[in-house]
Amino acid sequence: MSDPSSPSGFPIGDMPVMWLRDNCPCAQCRDPRSGQKLFQIGDLPAGLRVKAVAAAGGGAGQAVEVVWAPDGHRSAYPTAWLEANRPGTPGRRDRRTEDGKELWTARDLAGRLPGARWEDYVGEPAVRARMLESVLRLGFMVLRGVPERDEQVLAVAETFGHVRETNYGKLFDVRVEPDPNNLAFTSSAITPHTDNPYRDPVPTLQLLHCLVNDADGGDSGLVDGFGAAALLRREDPEAFEVLVRTPVPFVFRDADTDLRAHRPLIGTDSLGRVREVRFNNRSISTLRLAAGELESFYSAYRTFAELLLRPELRLDLRLVPGDCLVFDNTRLLHARTAFAQDGARHLQGCYADLDGLESTLAVLRRADTLEPLAELFEGAGAVEYLGEPVSMAQHMLQAGALAEAAGAPPHLVAAALLHDIGHFEGDAVTGRDLMGGNDNRHSHTGADWLGRWFGPEVTEPVRLHVAAKRYLCAVEPGYYEELSSASKYTLEVQGGVMSPAEAAEFAGLAGAGDAVAVRRWDDGAKDPLGVTPGFEHFLPLLGGLLRG
Amino acid sequence: MSDPSSPSGFPIGDMPVMWLRDNCPCAQCRDPRSGQKLFQIGDLPAGLRVKAVAAAGGGAGQAVEVVWAPDGHRSAYPTAWLEANRPGTPGRRDRRTEDGKELWTARDLAGRLPGARWEDYVGEPAVRARMLESVLRLGFMVLRGVPERDEQVLAVAETFGHVRETNYGKLFDVRVEPDPNNLAFTSSAITPHTDNPYRDPVPTLQLLHCLVNDADGGDSGLVDGFGAAALLRREDPEAFEVLVRTPVPFVFRDADTDLRAHRPLIGTDSLGRVREVRFNNRSISTLRLAAGELESFYSAYRTFAELLLRPELRLDLRLVPGDCLVFDNTRLLHARTAFAQDGARHLQGCYADLDGLESTLAVLRRADTLEPLAELFEGAGAVEYLGEPVSMAQHMLQAGALAEAAGAPPHLVAAALLHDIGHFEGDAVTGRDLMGGNDNRHSHTGADWLGRWFGPEVTEPVRLHVAAKRYLCAVEPGYYEELSSASKYTLEVQGGVMSPAEAAEFAGLAGAGDAVAVRRWDDGAKDPLGVTPGFEHFLPLLGGLLRG
Repeated sequence: MSDPSSPSGFPIGDMPVMWLRDNCPCAQCRDPRSGQKLFQIGDLPAGLRVKAVAAAGGGAGQAVEVVWAPDGHRSAYPTAWLEANRPGTPGRRDRRTEDGKELWTARDLAGRLPGARWEDYVGEPAVRARMLESVLRLGFMVLRGVPERDEQVLAVAETFGHVRETNYGKLFDVRVEPDPNNLAFTSSAITPHTDNPYRDPVPTLQLLHCLVNDADGGDSGLVDGFGAAALLRREDPEAFEVLVRTPVPFVFRDADTDLRAHRPLIGTDSLGRVREVRFNNRSISTLRLAAGELESFYSAYRTFAELLLRPELRLDLRLVPGDCLVFDNTRLLHARTAFAQDGARHLQGCYADLDGLESTLAVLRRADTLEPLAELFEGAGAVEYLGEPVSMAQHMLQAGALAEAAGAPPHLVAAALLHDIGHFEGDAVTGRDLMGGNDNRHSHTGADWLGRWFGPEVTEPVRLHVAAKRYLCAVEPGYYEELSSASKYTLEVQGGVMSPAEAAEFAGLAGAGDAVAVRRWDDGAKDPLGVTPGFEHFLPLLGGLLRG
Repeated sequence: MSDPSSPSGFPIGDMPVMWLRDNCPCAQCRDPRSGQKLFQIGDLPAGLRVKAVAAAGGGAGQAVEVVWAPDGHRSAYPTAWLEANRPGTPGRRDRRTEDGKELWTARDLAGRLPGARWEDYVGEPAVRARMLESVLRLGFMVLRGVPERDEQVLAVAETFGHVRETNYGKLFDVRVEPDPNNLAFTSSAITPHTDNPYRDPVPTLQLLHCLVNDADGGDSGLVDGFGAAALLRREDPEAFEVLVRTPVPFVFRDADTDLRAHRPLIGTDSLGRVREVRFNNRSISTLRLAAGELESFYSAYRTFAELLLRPELRLDLRLVPGDCLVFDNTRLLHARTAFAQDGARHLQGCYADLDGLESTLAVLRRADTLEPLAELFEGAGAVEYLGEPVSMAQHMLQAGALAEAAGAPPHLVAAALLHDIGHFEGDAVTGRDLMGGNDNRHSHTGADWLGRWFGPEVTEPVRLHVAAKRYLCAVEPGYYEELSSASKYTLEVQGGVMSPAEAAEFAGLAGAGDAVAVRRWDDGAKDPLGVTPGFEHFLPLLGGLLRG
């Protein structure tokens, strides 16, 4: 075995081999279409070890190639990836636990309620992203001016996810008309609680859309349950532990429904981080524990209940018609103040889930991640592509559009769209440089630079697209003749027509087919009259290929 | 403080007071309509203690009355309830953990696959209950002969719950047409996995409805993940612990979606019981841990992966058109064998949740619980109600129907329907006994007996319905005259018209209003031509009032 230290200084030898190999980015190990792994962990050879390590690439695209024993598999890990994921590096935040939240008390949010106008939320992705981020970070958002229409609350949910239908239907009405016979809904306050604790999985999001609120009183209150749990942990660690370890039976029953769940009031993940609060005295059924455990539980339960009622924890807000409150039902407790019986109040609510909201936010943010590429297409790319009748941006957009029209999978559309990006990277390379012979590395430069965002399924066809021209000139009669004169000219500075031995070697590469496909879209993308969609058309496709 | 030992032998003094008081069944403490608690735990006085204990009721309806200090509140706990819930009694099984499951290997299910014909499942509640129980206990069921219609899988889900819509839509197609260009779906086997591990909450149920399966191969396999986890715990407890405590990043990304969840491969509840298995190598992203932890994790992960592939754990079954497999996606891993490329195979799938299924099953089972009452209406109740022109069953059905027509809440409809049930309890009391004067306890006997199923909101109006007659005779001019002659006769053996002092005391009882209402429906329910729904009409209403 050769020295398993990385030539780039990465102590590959210290890295757990199974972990490293499980993260091999090659197209045999990961499906280029979905990014999903194509092997099972048990498929890896038991005596797996690093046989050899070599540097590959350069600059931002520097990589470490590992040759594996006993199977001879080769993996190329971008240095940037090794840096970001080096064992011992803190993990990506789990945004569902307290670690991923900003805990608050009422005072912390004074003057900075997370709110937006409905038309801005719908119309401006940046506003939408800011609001969805508030739901993740603070636990809620308030949209104002939401059309006061029946069932509009479902449309709000669909802006970020999917409605969770329950026994209450797709939506539920919280309607309190003046009705002295209805004692359950008179002027009484409702103390802070989470909804549906008897459901498992509990709905992780709740929406409340105000249609009418003429009542005197009937204000809403929110309490940060994660903040309260953290406070309990500081003030009474023993009570906290009791609530974490005691499953509580929650029950809801009516003529058509008989729901039960056994979950603790404070749920933690396997690392002990607060992950869920369920608090609703109304639906706690009879606990069956030994007497001493019951004493401990009830003492802790009362302590937490009293803590949750501290005024400083409670954020009061009044929903007016058109307001839609969206909140994390695994974290925030909601409450209602008392209100006079002679006023009408009508909210419509529904449930949805946090995973969909988180996904929607992540997709919105891809545009930011891809901003540097978008800028190149708008700025540097608009310059002439000397020797060709189109600008560089037009040329690449045409290549991407041709790939798309041909039904190519997303990674090849992306490779076609981005194949000449190396002309822009670092010191901008102008068409004149190109014609002057400074082009023989643009495919490598581009591939390396794209490695910041994309895996080898995108970068390698880019890397090989120049070689593919040299190859096609060697093996395909008539191909050379069809090239533009600029392309014929640059062929020489790129190494010229491949020798038969070079062509045979190229044809044997795993990515040769993809590179040839990209090359043909490249060659066809020089139409001065070609009309293509803009770069933003390709954003969702590129976003789906981003490596996390 | 008087001796807090229960006169019935229950050591009330040993019972945690907060727990006991929190379970007070009175109508002030629990909403009779919903069974939900009307107070917050913090509302209970801090120095709560038992001031006095007395026996109440008798026979099956024996109860213990507790007088509380310092607030003087009174709670009557049926002895049967105290027995069933005595501290230290094992808790109700949490059916979502391994404790509530029958763990299996393939051999255990040989010849007893949980299956049913679709028409039987739909038409026979007992078959439906047996099948849904299989999903809870074994993790799956197979319905045969389900109509081979597009979207039928959604109709199957709606027989027990609600479809969980995801980024894949309401349903997804698993369609493999012969297509040599589509390498991802050629003849390869898919090893056992759970679906959507990158979603949180993960869909807890999956349905797969087979529309076409002409392929050679393409059989399905199921592995009991809870059984496998338990096996791992026995064989390699250290590996089990590593998998329980390590959150694993799962990822799914495409152009519109960016889902992530951090969850362990084996999830346990706060008591360490296995509650969830997530296993899907394809979507495990890069773990970031210290090198030593990565080594431990990968070693444990491989051990579990190898265990999951043991042939004896895997149940093989072939889905044919019309089959619908429904399985617990938090527990069972599913797999597909290799199949020839030249056969068509088309499944439609959707997701749903276990809580809805569990609720549907519990509601189906209420009919069994209420069977003794149904039998009385069909058997003993059909006898004459001497002195009245209707049978006892007709009389009670009429009273229930009158209450329902008046818009009475469910607990009063039930009280009206069941008010004379005491005539049947124990040694059947005939109309002749009634007329002979053996009736003065029937209201108490009935109320006590109904305490097996229902709370005081149902039993107490029954208990007081005879007293209500004596009260109305005292306070309402003309009431006596309207009574049937049989009712006038029994008035005497029941104690006669109340004295002014007795009437004042009665009027002061919390349940007097409900009792008077029931009495009036009782009085009106003697129409020889009255047509009423049968007892089964009231089953859902009664089921919703059952005390768990």
